[in-house]
Formats: sequence, C-alpha cells, structure tokens
Amino acid sequence: MSFALRPAWSYEDLDRFFHPRSVALVGASDKPGKVGTAILENLLFGAAGERDRSRGFPGKVYPVNAKGATLFGHKAFASCAELPEPVDFAVIAVPPPQVPEVVTEVAARGARAISIISGGFGELGKPGEALQEEVVRRARAAGARVLGPNTLGVLSVNAGLNASFARTTPRCGGISFLSQSGALITGLIEYALEENIGFSKIVSIGDKCDLDDVDLLRYLARDPETQVIAVYIEALRDGRSFFEAAREVVRRKPIVAYKSGRSESGARAAASHTGSLAGNDAAYAAAFRQAGVFRADTIYSMVDAAMAWASQPVPVGNRIAVLTNAGGPGVICADEAASLGLGLARLSDSTLVALDKCLPAIWSRGNPIDIIGDAGPDRYEASLQALLAAPEVDGIVLVCTPQAMTEPLETAKRIVQVVEASPARKPLTASFLGIVHQPSEDWLDAHGIPERAFPERSVRAMDALVKRGEQLRRLAARDERPVTSPAAFDPELGRYLHGLAAAGRTTLTLAEARRVFALAGLPMNASVVATSPEEAARAARSVGFPVAMKVVSEQVLHKSESGGVKVGLGTEAEVSAAYDEIRASVRRAVPGAVIDGVAVDEVVRGTELILGASTDPLFGKLVMFGMGGIFVEVYKDVSFRLAPLTLDEAHDMLDELRARPILDGARGAPKADKDLLAALLVRVGDLVRAFPQIRELDVNPLVVSRTGTMAIDARVLLEDAAPRS
Amino acid sequence: MSFALRPAWSYEDLDRFFHPRSVALVGASDKPGKVGTAILENLLFGAAGERDRSRGFPGKVYPVNAKGATLFGHKAFASCAELPEPVDFAVIAVPPPQVPEVVTEVAARGARAISIISGGFGELGKPGEALQEEVVRRARAAGARVLGPNTLGVLSVNAGLNASFARTTPRCGGISFLSQSGALITGLIEYALEENIGFSKIVSIGDKCDLDDVDLLRYLARDPETQVIAVYIEALRDGRSFFEAAREVVRRKPIVAYKSGRSESGARAAASHTGSLAGNDAAYAAAFRQAGVFRADTIYSMVDAAMAWASQPVPVGNRIAVLTNAGGPGVICADEAASLGLGLARLSDSTLVALDKCLPAIWSRGNPIDIIGDAGPDRYEASLQALLAAPEVDGIVLVCTPQAMTEPLETAKRIVQVVEASPARKPLTASFLGIVHQPSEDWLDAHGIPERAFPERSVRAMDALVKRGEQLRRLAARDERPVTSPAAFDPELGRYLHGLAAAGRTTLTLAEARRVFALAGLPMNASVVATSPEEAARAARSVGFPVAMKVVSEQVLHKSESGGVKVGLGTEAEVSAAYDEIRASVRRAVPGAVIDGVAVDEVVRGTELILGASTDPLFGKLVMFGMGGIFVEVYKDVSFRLAPLTLDEAHDMLDELRARPILDGARGAPKADKDLLAALLVRVGDLVRAFPQIRELDVNPLVVSRTGTMAIDARVLLEDAAPRS
Repeated sequence: MSFALRPAWSYEDLDRFFHPRSVALVGASDKPGKVGTAILENLLFGAAGERDRSRGFPGKVYPVNAKGATLFGHKAFASCAELPEPVDFAVIAVPPPQVPEVVTEVAARGARAISIISGGFGELGKPGEALQEEVVRRARAAGARVLGPNTLGVLSVNAGLNASFARTTPRCGGISFLSQSGALITGLIEYALEENIGFSKIVSIGDKCDLDDVDLLRYLARDPETQVIAVYIEALRDGRSFFEAAREVVRRKPIVAYKSGRSESGARAAASHTGSLAGNDAAYAAAFRQAGVFRADTIYSMVDAAMAWASQPVPVGNRIAVLTNAGGPGVICADEAASLGLGLARLSDSTLVALDKCLPAIWSRGNPIDIIGDAGPDRYEASLQALLAAPEVDGIVLVCTPQAMTEPLETAKRIVQVVEASPARKPLTASFLGIVHQPSEDWLDAHGIPERAFPERSVRAMDALVKRGEQLRRLAARDERPVTSPAAFDPELGRYLHGLAAAGRTTLTLAEARRVFALAGLPMNASVVATSPEEAARAARSVGFPVAMKVVSEQVLHKSESGGVKVGLGTEAEVSAAYDEIRASVRRAVPGAVIDGVAVDEVVRGTELILGASTDPLFGKLVMFGMGGIFVEVYKDVSFRLAPLTLDEAHDMLDELRARPILDGARGAPKADKDLLAALLVRVGDLVRAFPQIRELDVNPLVVSRTGTMAIDARVLLEDAAPRS
Repeated sequence: MSFALRPAWSYEDLDRFFHPRSVALVGASDKPGKVGTAILENLLFGAAGERDRSRGFPGKVYPVNAKGATLFGHKAFASCAELPEPVDFAVIAVPPPQVPEVVTEVAARGARAISIISGGFGELGKPGEALQEEVVRRARAAGARVLGPNTLGVLSVNAGLNASFARTTPRCGGISFLSQSGALITGLIEYALEENIGFSKIVSIGDKCDLDDVDLLRYLARDPETQVIAVYIEALRDGRSFFEAAREVVRRKPIVAYKSGRSESGARAAASHTGSLAGNDAAYAAAFRQAGVFRADTIYSMVDAAMAWASQPVPVGNRIAVLTNAGGPGVICADEAASLGLGLARLSDSTLVALDKCLPAIWSRGNPIDIIGDAGPDRYEASLQALLAAPEVDGIVLVCTPQAMTEPLETAKRIVQVVEASPARKPLTASFLGIVHQPSEDWLDAHGIPERAFPERSVRAMDALVKRGEQLRRLAARDERPVTSPAAFDPELGRYLHGLAAAGRTTLTLAEARRVFALAGLPMNASVVATSPEEAARAARSVGFPVAMKVVSEQVLHKSESGGVKVGLGTEAEVSAAYDEIRASVRRAVPGAVIDGVAVDEVVRGTELILGASTDPLFGKLVMFGMGGIFVEVYKDVSFRLAPLTLDEAHDMLDELRARPILDGARGAPKADKDLLAALLVRVGDLVRAFPQIRELDVNPLVVSRTGTMAIDARVLLEDAAPRS
C-alpha cells in the first residue's frame, strides 16, 4: 500500500484523541448487541448498562445515526452536517464502504482526530485495501489523524472518556496501555477492576492505516498523566523507529512489552491474524533489550510490572528482604529471587537487634525474616519498621499466610500506616497467600501496595522495580545514545563494493570476502590460494605450519562433506599430497565443479566465536556475536544488537554470553581482549550501516587465541543490485 | 537422633488418621486466638466462627482440657482417663514438655493415630530432641503412629474431618496434598475456596518424628478417594525411598511436586527453617524426572496441574486446538504451547467444512480457531462440537475474551452442555480472559472444567494433561522398573577395591583408576607410564602417534597449570623432548613433588562428553552424563539419574541433552553409537551400586570418535574406609 505523505508528528494532533472538547459517534445506535450501542453507552455513561450521565464523558457527545431519533434519551443527528458545532474527535462505526465518505464529512465538521472502529477492510481483499487508502488520502487532505481501522477504540480514563466498545471503564491511574489486540484490552479491564489497577490511556492500535505504535509511544512519553507504558505487540510496522522512540522514552518512563508470536507457530498465528509480518523474534528481543524495554513473558507479568512501577518507588539496589509469617513461602521467595538475580539482604547487627526486640525468641534471625505463624498486626508493624529503617535493605517482599491467628485486614492496614509514615522511599510488594478478592487485598491495592495471591508474582514485581532502578542508574552513568559519527573506512572499500554490485555479485567468494575484510580493517588469518601442489607447499611455508587447506570453488557449497577440507597439515609433503587429494575428492563429489585453487590457511587455535551482521526487514542492520564452533546451533549462546553500537553496548553483548567465563580465561582458555572484541563489534556494526548493501556478513569462527583475535572464515552476501520490491 | 525400630508400614494404621470413628483433642480450648480453639472449632463445625455441628466431623469428638468445663457447648474432659470410650485418633496441642505423658495417656485409651500439633521442640535444642525421642519411644511401645510434631494437622475432607488449625475446610474433591509447610496449606485452602478446587486429604507433614512423606505417599496411592497427589517439599528425609515409592505410585495416580530450595539461598532458607538438609537440587530433579513426578515451578502451576488431572481426561496425543474469540490471546496460546512442546493440531478438511458451516466467512480457517469477537454462545457451542468430533484434535484450550457481544455465563453453560453430551473423552481447559470471581468461572469450575483468567495458565494445565497421557502410554509400553540383577563384574575388582580401601586409599591415582576401569570393563584409551625420555618414545610408538603426555604425580593437582601436560606430539623426538620439559616445568611449579613418571596417552579425537557417578546423601548413587570439554560448567548440558538404570532410562539421558544433534552426527561430528553409550551408562550405574565404596567416579572427557567411544581421563574417589559418622 502506498499512502500520501504522512503528516509531521505533533503532540497536539494526538492529544485530540485523549482530551477532545467534543466527540461525534457516527454509527451510534441503541440496539442491544451492536458496536455503535456499546460505544455510545461508554461515551455517555462510562459502561454498558449504566444510565448515569455523570459517569460518562463530561464534554459534548454527538451521536450520529442515519435515522436521527433519540438514543438513550439523547438527541441523535441524522448526518454530520446537522451537528450544531464543530467536533474535535470523531468515532466511526459504519460498514467499511461508507467510511471514506464519513471521513470527509467529519473532517468537514472540524474533526482532526478520527477513530475508525469498523473492521473487515482486510477481509474485503483488494477493494478493502483501496477503501483504506481512500480513507487515509481523505484524512490527510483534511489534516486529520486516523486511528484504526479495526480498533476497539481509545479510553482516556483521566478525561472520563471511553470511546471504545469495551464493556466498562477501569479506574484512573498512571498506566497507559497500547495494544494490538482489542480483546486483550477488554480482558485486562475486567482484571484491572478486580485487582484495583488504574489506567490513564488505553489504545487499541488496530490496523494502523495511519497512526501506529511509534506515534502513540511518543505521545505517551510526553503525556503528563502517563507514568508507565505497557505495550502488547504482535507485529510492528517499523521496528527501527519503535526502537529509536523507545530508547528515548525509557529515559523518562518505564516500558513493559508483551510480544507474542515468539514461537514459529505463534508467529504464524499472529501473521494470519494481523495480516502483517510478525518478524524475527531475535530481532525484537535485541531491540527491546537494547532500547531498555522490559519484556514480560506472560500477560500477568506485564500487568504486575506496570502496577509495581506505577505505585512503588524504585530501589537503590537489589538487596531484598523477605518478611513472612511462614517458612515455606519464605523459601519460595528466596528461590524466585535467586532465579531472577536478586540478592537477599544480609541483615546488619543493628537490624537484628531491632528485630530481636519485637519478635519471639525463635524467629529465624536471618533473611527471609520469619516472624512466626502467630504473627499479628503488631509484629508485622514493628518488623516492617525495622526493615524500612535498615540501610542494608533496598526493597521488601512481604508475605502473609492466613493462619489461625492471622488478621489479614488489620495487618494490611498497619502495613499501609507504616509505609506512609516512613521517611524511607523503599519499595514494598506483598503477597497474602491464596487470598483473592478479600478486603485485605483491596486495602493494599487501594493504597498503592501491589498485592498478589502468590509470592512468586510479588517477587517478580519487585524484580521489575529493581531492574528499573538499575536502568535509571545506568542511563545516568553512561551515554546510551549510539555513536552516529561516520566511521572512517578506506575509500577503496566503497569502490570495491560498488564494483561487485555492478558485476552482479551477491554471494561473495572467500577471496572477495577477504578483500572486504581487509579494506574494512577486520583481522583475518593469513591465507594463500595455491593452484599447484608446489605452490601449496610454498604457501604453507609462508603462513607457517601447521596449515589447513580448503578448496576454492563457487560450485562447492558443502566443502567439508565434499572432501574439500583438510586440517592439521604439518609438513610440506603433507601439504602437497593434500592438494592433490582435495582436488580428487571434490571432482568425485561435485562433478563439473570449477576448482579455482586450494586455499592454504594459517591455523589459529583458541576459542571459537561467531560474529555476524544481518538485515532484518523490520529493524534493519543487526550485529550478532556469540560462541561458535559446532555448538552454535545447539546452545544458541549468541547475542544480538541493532547497529550502530556504542562501545558500552558491545561490551553488553560480551557480558550477555553464558560462556563469558571462557572469554575470561576459565578452564585454560585463552583470555580474550574484551576491549578489542568490543571494538570489533562496533566496527562491524558501522560497516553494515555505512554500506547497507552488505546484506549479511558471517564470521564462523572468529578465533581468540593466545596471540590475538582473528576471523578464520568469512561469508559476505550483498543485496541484489536490482531494485528489490 | 536414633529411634526405636519403625513399625512396619500398614495402610490400616495410616487410615486411622483419615477415617477414625472418634477423635480426642488434648489441649482443647475455647479462648480466641489459641491453636486448641481453632482445632476444636474445625473438628466440631468445620471452620472458625461456624457453630453448626452438622458441618463438623460426623464421628465422636472428645475435647480434653485440664479444666474440664464445657467448650462451645460440648462437654470437655479433664483427662484422657475420663473419656467414656476408647478413641481412634488423638490430636495433641499442649506444650512440648507435656507431650510424652499425653502420648502415653491417649495410647492407653486406644489411640493408634496421634497427631502432635505442638511445635517448638526444635527450638528447645537438645532437651527438645530428647523429648521428641521420648514421644516416639512411647508411641512405638504402644503400636501407635505419630504425625508431627509441629504440624498444622490433617484434613480428611471426604470424611468431614478437619483436625487442623487452618481457618476453614475446602470443598470435597480428588486432590490430596502433602505439605512440609503448614502455611502453604492454609493459603491453598483459601485459594481453593475461591477457585472451587476440591480436596480429599490434606496433610501437614511437620517435623516427621515418625511418619514422613513416603509413608503418606504410599497411603495416598492406595486411598480410593485420592485421584491426584500434590506435594510441597522443602527437604526429604529419605530421598531414595521417596523415589522408589513415587515411581510405583505414578503408575496409578499422577504426582505433582513443588520443591523449594532450588537455589542456594533458597536451600539455605529451607535448611534454617526446617533444620534439615535441603540437599542437592540436581538430585531432586533427577529423582522426580526418573520417577515420573511432574515438577511444578510455581505454586499455581502445581494447583493448575492437579486440578486439571482431577477434573479432565488425559488426551491420546499432544495435538491441541485453540478455540478463541480473539486473535491476540490465540497467538499467546500458540506461543505457550510451542514453548512447552505441545503441537497445534492441523485441522482436517472435514473439520474445516464443519467449522465453515457454523462460523462467519472471515474466520481464521486455521488453528488457533478464531471465531471472531462477536461470537456468542451458539458459535462457541457449534465450533466446540466440531473440535470434539475432530479426530486430529487431542485436546482443546478454549479462550473467551469479554467483548461487547460476549455472554460469558451463557457461553460457560453451553460449553458444559456440549462437553457433557459429547461421547469424546477429550480434555478441555478454559480461559475467560481477565475474569476473576464471576459466575461464568464458578459454573465451569463447578462442572469440572478448569478455568483461569490468563490463557498461559490454561495452556500449561493442558500440558500437564498431555504429559500425563504420554507418561501412561510410556509406562504401558516399557518396563520402568530398574534392573536389579547383580551385574557381573570380574571378582578381581572387588578384591582390588578392598585392597585399596585397606591401604587407606581414597583419591585414586590415574593408574589405580585405570585399573578399576579395566576390571569393570569400561573402555579407556591406551596409556603407558614412562620414566625416561627413551621409554616415552617407545611408549608413543606402541600407542600410536600423535600422543598426549601428562605428568604422573600425586602432589600435582593442577596438571595443565603446572606445565605437566603436552598434547599433539607427532614424532619420537618431540616425545622425548616433551618428557624432559614436563619434568622441568613441574619441578619449578610444584617444588618437592614426587614425579612417578609421565603418561604417554593415545589421542582420540571426537566429541567430548562427560560421564560420572556420585553419592548423594539423600538419594544415594547418581549417574551423570553430558557434554564435556571446556563448556561443561558454562552450559551445564548434563543429565542425572539415580542408579541403577534401565537401558530405557539411559537412552532418556542421551535424549535429554540439548546437544543431542551432535551425538547424531550434526555439523560433521562423529555419529555416536547410542546403544553402546546407553550400555556404558547402565554399566557405570551398576558398578557404583555393586561397589558402593566408590564415592565418586568422573570421566572427562569421554570421547566419541569415528572409531569408538572411550574414556580419556578417569578420576575415582573411594569412601574413607574409617566408619563415617
């Protein structure tokens, strides 16, 4: 689809969706079961079945319905032309074929924010696409921005606006939620009502004919009512822009994303559902990590993280105290904390003394702090006070199990009192084990203390707080913005690549790849191509024994399997003989192959790594680094980042490897020069950004030996010079 | 602690705890906040605060209280002697010092089942231990079995018996729960009431002075009212017996275990809480896997699995259909299914036709089956019928998101109708997204369809059903019982090991280990110890070039780091020179080391594996197998099993490795003879069982080459011959 030029992004344009003075609903109805009815009820009364106008949108609501008439006691207009005044925001819920005309009509009445609820464009095939293009063309001509089509709508809870067909409106709060699934919004609203979770803006992104995730992310970043951003993504339209926007946003507000389509079958399901490319999960993972987006792996983890951020301060460190009236759940918390990398605070002597004063003699005197099953509100109060005052404790996970002597509600009240009276800005998450839907839970939720029935979720909520604290400290300590200075490359490199493209080369030979590497300043082992046994022996002398030998032929794809590779050749005689053997084997294995010679390679022993770059359709250039050799596919111990990279980001890639101890010289492995490796990663990223025609680049292995680091093999793919559709 | 001989296990002995005719409660009270009050209320009325005797235990309840008097309108007896008739079951809730005497008294009145609620023995230190021993001595003398001390008590829900101080009683059902944490029981009861989960028996295991997990597991296995067993474990007393019992039980009933203390800090917390050894998590993991115990990683996964098993049939395969009224949650289910290894059913043409008939034209025509957001009860009914009838679908995960047109309760009712009317015994789990505590949920729960607010949990519940189905089929297809036939070992091996022990040897030299391997029939590479450069050269000729050389010295622990190892020696001259260099290096690195010679080893190139055996204090002999070399600690790609092993179990160990494709010859690696490897694992298991004095055995690496499989290094540790305390 090709659309007219998108208008420049403006905060004010988007704000009309969330703070309009007036809203027109075209396709309004009062017939039960119709979308136009559900939206009208939400606009007028805030929920289905409500009839109290004071709970609806406080601004003007103008229902438009071809039949005119009165809907829920409110005057409806037969057409937009009849509206008594211009409107800011128009919601359209009419069949797709009518939508373009309605867009023109509402735009004529001043609407610059248009939400198209109507779905089914995609299912109409080509005609649907044309309709959608027409919608965008008309909106752009009028300077209006469009949400949808196929959206549940928007909720601007602080403004009292529910312009969606969700069944009800959640309470007010600091979380804003962008979702590619309208149904997920409806589900989360139900859950939020039950769990007292408050929202600011909720947007169903729909089919993104105009506004997309990036536009809305940028809006929410500036929206003063939004503290925390949660996003449900099936497929981004422009991954790179999302990445760049998110990377800026997290400096001000935390983002948690739930990305579905992680698995192949999930991606297929997402693609068939959204009609868009679900993309490569590794690229999403890299983009989230690099941008600082917290990735949730379940819906409830997303909600738990968002709620924790919206209600609790971030801690200054990761040392957690677990306060519990039962040992078992304390152990469970300790396990979960360890699996997330949280530390258990080591209680100081003065904290132990303070706790001794308020606890029975048999208390655990360690962390988890087991205050014993008969703990009442007083004991919770005193021990919580001691922990809030303890400088060695950064955050507290409080567990209360409902035993015979437990007073959940009074305990909850005391907890709130203590926290509110404490000068310490320390986060607290709570679990009242197994308790769902009871007053103690409501009390904590209502007072901004996230409470869950299972302690694992409370520990994970604390982990989200800790990770956000770490992120903020890291952002303050280092420059996360990518270096965009043009990397200096030999001018010959550009000419050489241009020449290859002109010659129609896409899969470069090893010799061509070697030349690219040499011009780009990427280190490779010595290698000489020989065309006779004698030349091979001479070559071996020059690169130094032992050598490896490999057939040079464009037709031979699987060199090892064709007998085209020999290793560990220690003498000139062996090398000469190997030359003949390789030619013979390859001739047998691949009849008709043109053999350009046999490469005689310097052998470098050491740790085998893998280094590469690729081009993702959504995110653009990616750099990959990890452990190489035969285990690369088995353990997938690799990390990805979007190019260009900062040096800090390159170091993050090294640190991320599970096999990092090997790079540090564990078990007799050669110690890697990490600064040099990081510089190499940055260089590769700069290379593919400077020369985007390099579609893929692969070094497997990159060997770290006792004497240095160099590429042993190189594969380079160029973009097809013919324009790609 | 040493106790009198444990009585032989008898079903009838344990059944007295769960189906007594009469119960005495010693330490009964009516003072609010006392444990004796809570238990009495539970016995009489089924819950705290209840006063309806018809909801309590239908048999006789005899409160015993030193003051006599009347408690809650029921006559209390001043002593056991005054009880009007013998009692079956006595619950004791008096301070520890009084417990032994009370045990004698209740036993004198016929009680053969005694539950000691009283805690605090452990905290009394030595005197507490003595008290506890005295309790056991007296109980055994009387032929009574004891639960506790420090137990919350037992609930036998089917029998109407709540002999615990939990706050209330859950509803009746097929799940029995053994828990080492009483608090977890109280929390789960609250949760179960909210989520309509039914229980049969609930036992708080307490400090296990007599009855332990194994006794109770065996009871529940035979209990006709128990369908599913859930266990919360912090530390087992006898891991091996638990393993053996569980392995038998799973043939009849599924077991799900939540084991805490997985992490180091968790284990420390568990140890300080239970005062017992939390043990090595790898051994627990091996035992659970090998016995067929399903391991849950959160409390709610344990509950979800148990509830699914208790209410749904197991499927005949792993092909799942996801039926949903929204695309997003469908994708989420597909992701979760893929991450668990579940397959998405590929719908047949006839199923597609059946669905076409009942769904709007724009339905997804694939799995997930997206029946569109406006799906009402009729559409759910018709599509569910089609899927229940589809032979290519083994199980169904149904998702319903609350959209404007959704009718949750009516949909729930229709689902129940369809399932109940269907002849297909196919499992169904449901998620009504975000919906907590609403009539639709209650309806499904009450009709045995597990419903959760988040689809991930519904997919995991389905996974538990699928895994149980797979387990039952596997149990039917193969003999899971270990081979216990005495493995035939060379008689000389026993003599040799005996001699080593007699000589006080514990850490064997490589030469000694080689001899053990040779006698045990475990293949090793050729190796000759040389004591001069000339001998070394001769040795190299005999084993074949190239060779590796390694210093032989008991004092040199880190042979590589001391310069005591050289590899890739290709000529006699190199070997002779290496001999001298090794001696010189080692002399410098470890002054005073006695150098017994230098081993000249056959070099075997191939995939490096690791193979070992160890002795776990709880589970006994374990066999370990995995990928070796420098990555062993990094990727921890190893599997463990308890010895002895069946051949099938040994094959499971191979199959479990992530690097299994390497063994299959991926990426040019030599293809391993898996039958031979499996036989080797069985042999190692038999070896350490036959000769338990072998405390540890380690082969790193075990090399799979193109010509065979052999050990290249061997480390053997023997038990100290001096008796171990």
